Amino acid sequence: MQFHHYGYVTTDPRIQPAAGVGVDRQPELPDDVDVLIVGGGPAGMLLAAQMSQFPTVNARLIERRPGRLEVGQADGIQARSVETFQAFGFAERITAEAYRFCATNFWAPDPDDRSRIIRTQRTEDDPHGVSEFPHLTINQARVLDYFAEAAAYGPGRITPDYGWELVSLEVTDGEEFPVQVSVRRTGGDNAGEERSVRAKYVVGTDGARSAVREAIGLKLEGTQAMHAWAVMDALTVTNFPDIRTKCAIQSENGSVLLIPREGGFLHRMYVDLGDVADCDNHAIRSTTVEQAIAKANTIMHPYTLDVRDVPWFSVYEVGHRLAKKFDDVADDEVGIRTPRVFIAGDACHTHSAKAGQGMNVSMQDTFNLGWKLGQVLTGLSPESLLDTYSAERKAVAQNLIDFDREWSAMMAKRPGEIPPAELAAHLVKSAEFTAGFMTEYPPSTIIGDLNHQDLASGLPIGKRFRSAPVVRVADANPVHLGHQARADGRWRIYAFADGSTVRGASLLRDWSEWMLCAPDSPVQRFTRIGAEFDSLFDIKVIFQGTHDQVAVEEVSRLYLPCKGPHAVVDYEKVFAVDPAQDFFDARGLERSGCVVVVRPDQYVAHVLPLTATSELTAFFDHILLESGRATAAPPANLVDALAL
Amino acid sequence: MQFHHYGYVTTDPRIQPAAGVGVDRQPELPDDVDVLIVGGGPAGMLLAAQMSQFPTVNARLIERRPGRLEVGQADGIQARSVETFQAFGFAERITAEAYRFCATNFWAPDPDDRSRIIRTQRTEDDPHGVSEFPHLTINQARVLDYFAEAAAYGPGRITPDYGWELVSLEVTDGEEFPVQVSVRRTGGDNAGEERSVRAKYVVGTDGARSAVREAIGLKLEGTQAMHAWAVMDALTVTNFPDIRTKCAIQSENGSVLLIPREGGFLHRMYVDLGDVADCDNHAIRSTTVEQAIAKANTIMHPYTLDVRDVPWFSVYEVGHRLAKKFDDVADDEVGIRTPRVFIAGDACHTHSAKAGQGMNVSMQDTFNLGWKLGQVLTGLSPESLLDTYSAERKAVAQNLIDFDREWSAMMAKRPGEIPPAELAAHLVKSAEFTAGFMTEYPPSTIIGDLNHQDLASGLPIGKRFRSAPVVRVADANPVHLGHQARADGRWRIYAFADGSTVRGASLLRDWSEWMLCAPDSPVQRFTRIGAEFDSLFDIKVIFQGTHDQVAVEEVSRLYLPCKGPHAVVDYEKVFAVDPAQDFFDARGLERSGCVVVVRPDQYVAHVLPLTATSELTAFFDHILLESGRATAAPPANLVDALAL
Repeated sequence: MQFHHYGYVTTDPRIQPAAGVGVDRQPELPDDVDVLIVGGGPAGMLLAAQMSQFPTVNARLIERRPGRLEVGQADGIQARSVETFQAFGFAERITAEAYRFCATNFWAPDPDDRSRIIRTQRTEDDPHGVSEFPHLTINQARVLDYFAEAAAYGPGRITPDYGWELVSLEVTDGEEFPVQVSVRRTGGDNAGEERSVRAKYVVGTDGARSAVREAIGLKLEGTQAMHAWAVMDALTVTNFPDIRTKCAIQSENGSVLLIPREGGFLHRMYVDLGDVADCDNHAIRSTTVEQAIAKANTIMHPYTLDVRDVPWFSVYEVGHRLAKKFDDVADDEVGIRTPRVFIAGDACHTHSAKAGQGMNVSMQDTFNLGWKLGQVLTGLSPESLLDTYSAERKAVAQNLIDFDREWSAMMAKRPGEIPPAELAAHLVKSAEFTAGFMTEYPPSTIIGDLNHQDLASGLPIGKRFRSAPVVRVADANPVHLGHQARADGRWRIYAFADGSTVRGASLLRDWSEWMLCAPDSPVQRFTRIGAEFDSLFDIKVIFQGTHDQVAVEEVSRLYLPCKGPHAVVDYEKVFAVDPAQDFFDARGLERSGCVVVVRPDQYVAHVLPLTATSELTAFFDHILLESGRATAAPPANLVDALAL
Repeated sequence: MQFHHYGYVTTDPRIQPAAGVGVDRQPELPDDVDVLIVGGGPAGMLLAAQMSQFPTVNARLIERRPGRLEVGQADGIQARSVETFQAFGFAERITAEAYRFCATNFWAPDPDDRSRIIRTQRTEDDPHGVSEFPHLTINQARVLDYFAEAAAYGPGRITPDYGWELVSLEVTDGEEFPVQVSVRRTGGDNAGEERSVRAKYVVGTDGARSAVREAIGLKLEGTQAMHAWAVMDALTVTNFPDIRTKCAIQSENGSVLLIPREGGFLHRMYVDLGDVADCDNHAIRSTTVEQAIAKANTIMHPYTLDVRDVPWFSVYEVGHRLAKKFDDVADDEVGIRTPRVFIAGDACHTHSAKAGQGMNVSMQDTFNLGWKLGQVLTGLSPESLLDTYSAERKAVAQNLIDFDREWSAMMAKRPGEIPPAELAAHLVKSAEFTAGFMTEYPPSTIIGDLNHQDLASGLPIGKRFRSAPVVRVADANPVHLGHQARADGRWRIYAFADGSTVRGASLLRDWSEWMLCAPDSPVQRFTRIGAEFDSLFDIKVIFQGTHDQVAVEEVSRLYLPCKGPHAVVDYEKVFAVDPAQDFFDARGLERSGCVVVVRPDQYVAHVLPLTATSELTAFFDHILLESGRATAAPPANLVDALAL
């Protein structure tokens, strides 16, 4: 956490200095906004937190509820989501209050007496160490609280506008605010009152019955039957021994998915109500909590569940459904016009809750979209950047539905049809998927070609940057390299040195000199005039030696930029390997060094040799607009700077 | 973190349900209070947080300042303090925003040119792994903020009464509120207004010029000369390469202690101004910030410090000083009357800042006192328990002053007098001391004899319970055993099993049965009628097997108590070893098992065999009062309870 350089911070340093529209943010929803986010679920709230990092962009979020969410809904948090929370500054806090999955146990009928269930298998939750982050469950309300905090503490000071819903919207291309939106108050003295808001962009994160989706003429499509579940959060006294462990329970009488919850006492229980007949007409929804508890007891015989309290209960029907496109540009309009309206999360894809994917994928939708909106609206990127959102995220949603269908089909089979060992093996094999790390964007304008992937075989281009430990040179602190990248909308460029120390690193020296001073380097070409040196590109260097071998005072000023009104030096971009786990070995980096480009949403965008300077600039030429910046080169290092 | 069992918690679970006087806490300072804490520094604020865990006790804290501290003062946080913060629920949060020491570098004159300093040695901060907690620096204001949060979020809902100072106090033994206190408003419209408050106990945490200390006729005593330091928090541009590393710098021109600070840019600098002559009359205090900066530049030649901003600067004179007693009972009155007034922190001991001890030891003073006050005021313990505070803490302060004198003398020597390698070796050897873990209370009424220490050689009686990893059986979560003990005023009793599993553990079974049901067991004898089963003793069991070998449903109900209005089961007291680090091996536990008793302030109070039941009761007979409780024994385990 870096602070004090814009003035001494005496209170919570998580509260960043206000900037732009955040300095004097209008309390009421204004007539004109840059971005209107419709819906304050996880996708919408993440987007608000991300937009708060672009304080010159006026983004607002409307939500139908009168205030914060209190209870219920999704609860499973993949490791990829916790990784994302880390970038937003609250992973350690939410982990401290969440339940952590370390095991999944499988229960099935006793072969000797099929009326009784027995434990057939124990599996570890992350046996392969897919991530340094845990797999959690927690009330979705807390996820929203933390994103709300990040949005309010960010320079843009965004807070939700509660009590408004979208009525309709219309896009008129060519105007400064091309989306005309009609919104309505949902409560209070003026409930029902309508007014209009004009927006440059609208994002619909308004759930499976999205009004935004409907307004742009899209619908959720799918062929599979709806499946029904009774879901409850419960306090239960039981002799079932695994009540605090995630369990997939299959019996002759149906199946239950048991999910322990935060706080040590509560658990969630999904009771399978089966596929819904076409002629059901939502009759299944009349299932009562008593019926669900009775069914769970039958399934879990010979164990008994004495359910003492049910803070939340719901019956829902869900199918695998997907929108054809995630924005308002029809396939035949791509390249002719750019999108003005987007949909994300449940508004464009729905799926069974059993694999614990929904909320997680939804948040990644808007993590993908947020920086693109930010860069376009601050003039850094052309509007065509926005075409990549639907292209990238629809493929992910389709993959998820394919995975989910396979998983649900396996869970829905009757005992005996599928050996428990096979089910368990499937779960273990799909650990990377279920942890949220299988997304791999193909080459595009914002994902480079794979020509130099062999320079960093453990950092696959198109997948999220997988962190590993390093040691910060200036203070000998062991840190995770990836955790130094906050969700602040900036690009990361990692220069992996071709030597152990500053003096030995000659390819690195040439590259650093070019990056620092050459008019065609990305820093010089794209960074805005007047902005801080690292405002667009956060460039870090990692040497192959240990921290005591690297003389920080001799490192190029590229990695020691000055910050704030006092122009003090940022020492937190120079790293050495951690002898306990050498980053180069851990991530398959060639000893000749390389440059790894990582997007603001943490995906590896490119891997290039240290000599490939023109390729690096060419890559960004498709993404960023020239700034016309012309900065005099700063002195090469601190020793020269201070003429020692 | 355990919650939801007293009702569903939708907001921050760190906010505990209000209870006792916390339900409707009076906003204004009342006429009668149980505990009046005078002074809102670290010692006072920790005590407020601790008393908030005893919500039937009406404790208030007065502080001269009009509001929270903003800047300056102490900043070094030992690992023992971070361990304490963990128990108060904010270690991970304060660590995330603090600077972490990982190294100390030593600088001394270059033998070839003694006008120049060179780096002579690098040392690791905790080379021996003394603790799993880090060594930090952070603005003291943040420590106070977090304790204030803990006090406000605790059931007692304590918030400081700002703007009041103590004028005088008088003790009249025999009355219900024997301490008559006069307090005065320090600001606002009614500044200077005096009023009286009656208290059962008063604690003076009001600093080196303590009015409470003076009122009970004690003074700080010491023989050594005062030593002066110029101290500043600064933003500096420099070519000194170790500006982000803790450095002890000795030169021909004096010495500087450099302490990097939180946020990545700020550092503290202690510039040694030397011993203060008797006839100085505080002239040294007129040293200006410009003079201090000039002196630092001279000391650090050939490096230059361009100090750009100084948010805080102070010159202070300090000597090693100690009060004869830490309460109002003269030596010849002990056993005749019990204390009513206590002093803690700087009010009873002062020392050089250079070893970074002051704030840390001060907080341990009140961590020692808080639970004693809580247990006496809730009727659990006799008033004689309060005699142990001064006895235990004065010895610690004396040890600290001895250590500090040695350390300061070493630092004050001129280069050449002491080889840098010797200084570095001293620092490494004293790592356990400087980390705050050398406190070892001798046997007393509240520290048992050492007869059975060999059963747990790595958990020394009288020292703080040193944690190690275990695995929680119910959910397979790897956790640190010691971190499960919050600063909630309860005693911990760890039953280390004599077997791997429930069935094999026969000494454990007998002990558990006795503890659960026998009228003379501590649980039955001392727990208040109507209170929850584990309200006084938090009893945990650790088996020698792995988590999958322990059938939680067969474990004694001693370790599975019911909680809250729904009487749901607490599953978080049953542990197995972590195969990666076997607790029994890590802490030298005999395989025959044992019982380890840990005080509410985390110190090991006793180690006994599982067979020593009468000794265990006898130990507590000196500390706790019989409750007259008579509880029917609950069923032996969950299987029996539910008649499966």
